[in-house]
Amino acid sequence: MNLFTKLQNIVTTSRITNDPAELYCYSSDASYIRGTPDYVVMPCNTAEVSEIVKLANKHRIPLVARGAGTGLAGGAVPLCGGIVLDMSRMNKIIDIDILDLQVEVEPGLIHADLNRALEPHGFFFPPDPGSSEMCTLGGLIANRGSGMRSVKYGTVTDYVLDLEIVMPDGAVIWTGGRVMKSASGYDLTALMVGSEGTLGVITRARLKIHPLPEVRAAVLAHFNDQEAAGRTVSAIMSSGIVPSACELMDSTTIKAINTYNAELGLPDCEALLLIEVDGAQCSIESDAASVANCCRELGAFDVKIAHSEVEMKELWAARRLAGAAVTRLNPGKTRVYIGEDVAVPLSAIPQMLKKIRAISRKHDLTIMTYGHAGDGNLHTGMAIDTLDKDQWDVLKRAADDIHKAALELGGTVSGEHGIGSARGEYMNQEHGGALDVMIAIKKALDPHNIMNPQKVGLE
Amino acid sequence: MNLFTKLQNIVTTSRITNDPAELYCYSSDASYIRGTPDYVVMPCNTAEVSEIVKLANKHRIPLVARGAGTGLAGGAVPLCGGIVLDMSRMNKIIDIDILDLQVEVEPGLIHADLNRALEPHGFFFPPDPGSSEMCTLGGLIANRGSGMRSVKYGTVTDYVLDLEIVMPDGAVIWTGGRVMKSASGYDLTALMVGSEGTLGVITRARLKIHPLPEVRAAVLAHFNDQEAAGRTVSAIMSSGIVPSACELMDSTTIKAINTYNAELGLPDCEALLLIEVDGAQCSIESDAASVANCCRELGAFDVKIAHSEVEMKELWAARRLAGAAVTRLNPGKTRVYIGEDVAVPLSAIPQMLKKIRAISRKHDLTIMTYGHAGDGNLHTGMAIDTLDKDQWDVLKRAADDIHKAALELGGTVSGEHGIGSARGEYMNQEHGGALDVMIAIKKALDPHNIMNPQKVGLE
Repeated sequence: MNLFTKLQNIVTTSRITNDPAELYCYSSDASYIRGTPDYVVMPCNTAEVSEIVKLANKHRIPLVARGAGTGLAGGAVPLCGGIVLDMSRMNKIIDIDILDLQVEVEPGLIHADLNRALEPHGFFFPPDPGSSEMCTLGGLIANRGSGMRSVKYGTVTDYVLDLEIVMPDGAVIWTGGRVMKSASGYDLTALMVGSEGTLGVITRARLKIHPLPEVRAAVLAHFNDQEAAGRTVSAIMSSGIVPSACELMDSTTIKAINTYNAELGLPDCEALLLIEVDGAQCSIESDAASVANCCRELGAFDVKIAHSEVEMKELWAARRLAGAAVTRLNPGKTRVYIGEDVAVPLSAIPQMLKKIRAISRKHDLTIMTYGHAGDGNLHTGMAIDTLDKDQWDVLKRAADDIHKAALELGGTVSGEHGIGSARGEYMNQEHGGALDVMIAIKKALDPHNIMNPQKVGLE
Repeated sequence: MNLFTKLQNIVTTSRITNDPAELYCYSSDASYIRGTPDYVVMPCNTAEVSEIVKLANKHRIPLVARGAGTGLAGGAVPLCGGIVLDMSRMNKIIDIDILDLQVEVEPGLIHADLNRALEPHGFFFPPDPGSSEMCTLGGLIANRGSGMRSVKYGTVTDYVLDLEIVMPDGAVIWTGGRVMKSASGYDLTALMVGSEGTLGVITRARLKIHPLPEVRAAVLAHFNDQEAAGRTVSAIMSSGIVPSACELMDSTTIKAINTYNAELGLPDCEALLLIEVDGAQCSIESDAASVANCCRELGAFDVKIAHSEVEMKELWAARRLAGAAVTRLNPGKTRVYIGEDVAVPLSAIPQMLKKIRAISRKHDLTIMTYGHAGDGNLHTGMAIDTLDKDQWDVLKRAADDIHKAALELGGTVSGEHGIGSARGEYMNQEHGGALDVMIAIKKALDPHNIMNPQKVGLE
């Protein structure tokens, strides 16, 4: 019996394909990385996943779990062929347990769908990726994602209580528990979060939830000096207020957003900070005022406070446009996600912004910089004519400079998008001997290297 | 050259001993577990630790790192002899970096000393163990400790950005970074937190810090029904307010505290909840009032709100007495820490309280129950005449019942004190196949099993 038939026996004919046209659809994520699987299988439950993994392990076939394919580093791209597990059919909310402050979900559930289900209960799941309406929770967990609000609420790691994992030998384990805290054994949950499918397949997750804040307000501050905006981030964060978001947009980002949607009419300036505070009605005014004062003291020339939900929505809509808007600067070019996710210590943001501008000049390449400055995470948007090999070369050199600049400042090459295969080459420089420890763990748990091979710089 | 001389060559004569009287002092922690080392060595820096570990690895000598010996599960007790590394000389604050919201410390630093150093900056390190004035940060990290305020602020895991670790082969790695978040590779930091010295020795830590809250208030609610108090915990936690502490004390605890210090005059009732809220001045009143209402609705017969720092200090002093006060119920008996740290899902607290009372009756053994109910963590205090073997047997059977009751309710045998050797036998029941994964990681990173052997149920 060939492999296709064996897989069919596990999942039925309708949930497996090796049709080249369909395989092509699974050969990329939202990055520039490409790789075609031999089979795509759509499991419906943990038992099926376990059977598929056992088969893959027996025959030494590479296996990659895939959520919605919104990843930006090639994490879900099958570089070595083999099986792609399309997890999108495992998308149920199993349990909403308000009394225990947790939910249980399947990994294929769309992020925004969970928050829509929680809202009537007055709760939410705080990690807030830009791809909320598309990305799956499994993918978010596998990539240790975070988003706009991690500055106050933390990353996905802080919200995963327990994971059901199909291990590389097909064994099914639960990594954590239903309790709010535990000091019982190694924190396998945290080890699995961010391991990008290299240690096992997530088939179920118990997630902590948080009460919705009563109210929020936003401060919009304009600067004629990028470094001053950068210094302001660190000043706000160490002032005693914990904002629920702290986003930076540089002049190129502002121009791109205004080109995309002129009605937003963001003022032309070197840098803009969008800081959100949330909490009790009574404290919002004073928190917003403190943030605004802090901005003024550090050189903001125009500071506005938005209270109404309509204003807030407009501001956040503008911010959410940033990632896509870069292409409007030059419609002939396409944004390539590369070097786009560095993070640095807060005090190093001004230097990082300066270095990015120097890199832009050096390579004569437009770079728009924006991102979650409140946790030092800066996204850089670069667009090229992707049919022009020379432009690719320039792009890659610029991305290399950005990665190295972040590492020189004590930063990381990925704040929230993951390593995948796009950033594997920097793992040694960033982690030194710790990379050897990661490799030893990978070898111990996946000795035949079937789980998402050639990722995370582990080979 | 014998081992003693080789160790002397690393740390000088004054910082090594094999004197039986001194070894005796290192043969226990605050639990009932005992084991005597062959050598105690007091390293001053990472290089020395690395040399000692290399020597231990070469000669296959067990090695246990020890902070202040305040552990409650035998984690720092050398069960197989060998070397105890007394880390108390590595107790410096290396760096307080307010702009980057972090500090760098050596592992032997006392917890309370860090908070005293941070207070003038308006910051604090939120994990808040009862042993704050004695325990070291290295021990807290190794045991994944938490304390009173984890209900709002999280456990130590949430505050460790980076650890310098001497691995079992003597290699020195850094597990994380200086950035607030990262999606770069496996989360080795979280893997090391709570690994109880079985994977390496912590020699340096970078810790996240948090702004001090503006103000706090406490609600003291009395109940004539323990289960009602338990239900109130879950009701408060799911009401939309996030208290900064939520402590429960049962009638036996109240009696013990009153016997210890009659001036406190806690009213005689079945259960007492002490709930703290913190934050902005303006929101404290309404938060405290909401908590108080919630308590009344669920059956509290007397609810007080304390605002002044004096009142607050008295209440917390009473709470902090709980652990020690049990012996006052019968001065001929000694508290033995066993079965003292279970945690259950919030909604299971009423059932767990009921089960503990049944266990007390079954074994005719006084059990006082108190603890961090806001995260489901219940401490049980039991005292016996430790020279009476029969009483030991009763105690162990009662502890076994408590552990099993917590596991039946979806809980854990340790919320914050760790597994050590006191709770190793429950690891399989609690974790199932996940324990095999822990063992595989241990074998991969410490193939000669020199790091704190016979702990965490790994053997």
